Amino acid sequence: MNRLNPPPRLLMGPGPINCYPRVLSAMSTQLIGQYDPVMTSYMNEVMGLYRQVFKTENQSTLLIDGTSRAGIEAVLVSCIEPGDKVLVPIFGRFGHLLKEISERAGADVHTIEVEWGQVFQPEQIEDAIKRVRPKVLALVQGDTSTTMLQPLEHIGEICRRYDVLFYSDATASIGGNPFETDKWQLDAVSVGLQKCLGGPSGSAPITLSDRYVDVVRGRHHVEAGIKAEHHQDAQGSRIRSNYFDIPMILDYWGEERLNHHTEATSMLYCARECAINLLEEGIDNSIARHKVNGDAMLQGAKGLNLEIFGDVSHKMTNVVGVYIPEAVNGDKIREQMLLDFNIEIGTSFGPLHGKIWRLGTMGYNARKDAVLHTLQSLETVLRRAGHKLSLGEAVDNAMTVYEENQNA
Amino acid sequence: MNRLNPPPRLLMGPGPINCYPRVLSAMSTQLIGQYDPVMTSYMNEVMGLYRQVFKTENQSTLLIDGTSRAGIEAVLVSCIEPGDKVLVPIFGRFGHLLKEISERAGADVHTIEVEWGQVFQPEQIEDAIKRVRPKVLALVQGDTSTTMLQPLEHIGEICRRYDVLFYSDATASIGGNPFETDKWQLDAVSVGLQKCLGGPSGSAPITLSDRYVDVVRGRHHVEAGIKAEHHQDAQGSRIRSNYFDIPMILDYWGEERLNHHTEATSMLYCARECAINLLEEGIDNSIARHKVNGDAMLQGAKGLNLEIFGDVSHKMTNVVGVYIPEAVNGDKIREQMLLDFNIEIGTSFGPLHGKIWRLGTMGYNARKDAVLHTLQSLETVLRRAGHKLSLGEAVDNAMTVYEENQNA
Repeated sequence: MNRLNPPPRLLMGPGPINCYPRVLSAMSTQLIGQYDPVMTSYMNEVMGLYRQVFKTENQSTLLIDGTSRAGIEAVLVSCIEPGDKVLVPIFGRFGHLLKEISERAGADVHTIEVEWGQVFQPEQIEDAIKRVRPKVLALVQGDTSTTMLQPLEHIGEICRRYDVLFYSDATASIGGNPFETDKWQLDAVSVGLQKCLGGPSGSAPITLSDRYVDVVRGRHHVEAGIKAEHHQDAQGSRIRSNYFDIPMILDYWGEERLNHHTEATSMLYCARECAINLLEEGIDNSIARHKVNGDAMLQGAKGLNLEIFGDVSHKMTNVVGVYIPEAVNGDKIREQMLLDFNIEIGTSFGPLHGKIWRLGTMGYNARKDAVLHTLQSLETVLRRAGHKLSLGEAVDNAMTVYEENQNA
Repeated sequence: MNRLNPPPRLLMGPGPINCYPRVLSAMSTQLIGQYDPVMTSYMNEVMGLYRQVFKTENQSTLLIDGTSRAGIEAVLVSCIEPGDKVLVPIFGRFGHLLKEISERAGADVHTIEVEWGQVFQPEQIEDAIKRVRPKVLALVQGDTSTTMLQPLEHIGEICRRYDVLFYSDATASIGGNPFETDKWQLDAVSVGLQKCLGGPSGSAPITLSDRYVDVVRGRHHVEAGIKAEHHQDAQGSRIRSNYFDIPMILDYWGEERLNHHTEATSMLYCARECAINLLEEGIDNSIARHKVNGDAMLQGAKGLNLEIFGDVSHKMTNVVGVYIPEAVNGDKIREQMLLDFNIEIGTSFGPLHGKIWRLGTMGYNARKDAVLHTLQSLETVLRRAGHKLSLGEAVDNAMTVYEENQNA
């Protein structure tokens, strides 16, 4: 049978992207048992590390064993009881996902929408909250489908005023854009590793405020096969999922260490290394690096005579959407980038499918050489496809961004 | 911050156990994009490999991104509509888990039980099916909580006769005990990597018969954010979970490659390597190896003057339960094994908590040296705790098993 030997792709799409080498190494570390004191100390360490990543003092900061949407579903299904009102402002694909997951959890979901490529003003969200009076506001921070970054800094205060739980998914944005769990008064946040944190998908760090935990603790039921005499079930309705039952997962990560799933040790090693890698660089330095490389890619794309998608003033640092020129075959360009240059750029979903490419500069790949190789290769492929552009302008634009930031 | 540097434990409990080195190496392989033709070829390869592992021709053979109970929940929540009858024969902790997950999915769950340490006769299950007339029979093959292996070979025929979907979880047993998906007429099987397959937890291979797929396809709904004009929703009720929605996951693993989660690439690499490792050894050889090492551990435990738990004629090959001698402190013995000898043995759950230890010989650790070191160390620790035993007898008993099997 074939040895595992994937080609050396440079992943410059909206994620997943190439992992930091130290993150890959961490995953090849031998296992220890799930109740080994060394293992539980790693679990506690991971909680502490992600408190720093999330900028929070929330005790309840831990990993959900699954991809980022596993974190989303865990947060939503644990707090939503059938009939609860949830408000979802939708500005891209992942807003639709929050709506759908909430509906499946039995929620009465209300939505507001802006066109893909735009974000919401706080007043729009406050108006909707006043009208709907939801239990939960579920709002994506960075939606890779549109490249937009929803400002969150004024939303938490509004939610507190109307006694709404404020949940955000920051998978696409964390580590490359500012995020402040406590300062912005968030009650629940979920992320993944496969964007600016530079890991693979498969582990979903989450953080939960005491307000959120109080709500879900009211639905706490201990699993029958491991129930002891001192365990009493809460009065609230049983959570619809066992795997995503946050009160039970808190028991596993907490002092009682009550067994739930078997922690995915290799992914925990990986999540730990992603956090350490970010914190050693410094969150602010990492955001600044994503900003410079994202700007270089943006200006480079303009130099390729490509039109930029959406409201650039609200773009994430780490991904940019560009319209596919009408004269070229978008899929063919992506195929040539992949097969001739080993560089992957992103396609799009839903209303943008076939209309824009997405160019990512995240995590390990938020690097000058990665940006320059991508721009050069795109220039070559577009030129040979007959797209009109000024040779060298893309790299020159990018170089200007790097020079300006060197002097800053 | 500390480098990841766990102690070199030998994991001889009920799992997780040490990974095969080649499996660890596979996880440190760099990523490729999720729609890269190389990636989709790996996904197809994984489907083919697990068809061999499961001994099935089921097209729908794939990975659920989560620990083994994620696979269980995906299988159950996708086929159970609220009010559906599910029959769960319970002979240990994981039967209780199948019951609980089915209840949370809205099922009307009926159970039959035998004492922990026993298994069911086919007639007992047939009688219950006749009485309950369930839509689904959910039955664990190997329940690590009791070390028992439920015979499945006659159950599928009974299920077909009464038009019942037959689902089994074989996480604890697969690769170390016979398993025949098609021959035994199973409709759904879920497993994990962390037992005899010698990987970490975090990926759950499943296989689904066409009968099962027909049932869940009747509940197929495409996600709003990626829905195209040619997509039509099925009439059946929406599955309660998005993450565990098998029809959507089949679209992602199938020809349409419709996006769902972002496949956890490192865990896919890992699952692939676990399967190749098993198939290169040969499933029958692997089962024989687990049998010999399990027998050696069993006879060795007797040589330590330990009483064996449960119906040994129905024990899994890869784990044995032994009563903790009354004169010793069970937790202290386990602690000394861990801290002085770097060897982990297992504790127990529920009614067996504090009463038995579980000694595993699985995957990479189903090895002569691992068994002998464990027996020697247990002898030392038990002797020093005042437990009466005959020095050297444990290793001699184990050696006899190895010698007999060498000559066989």
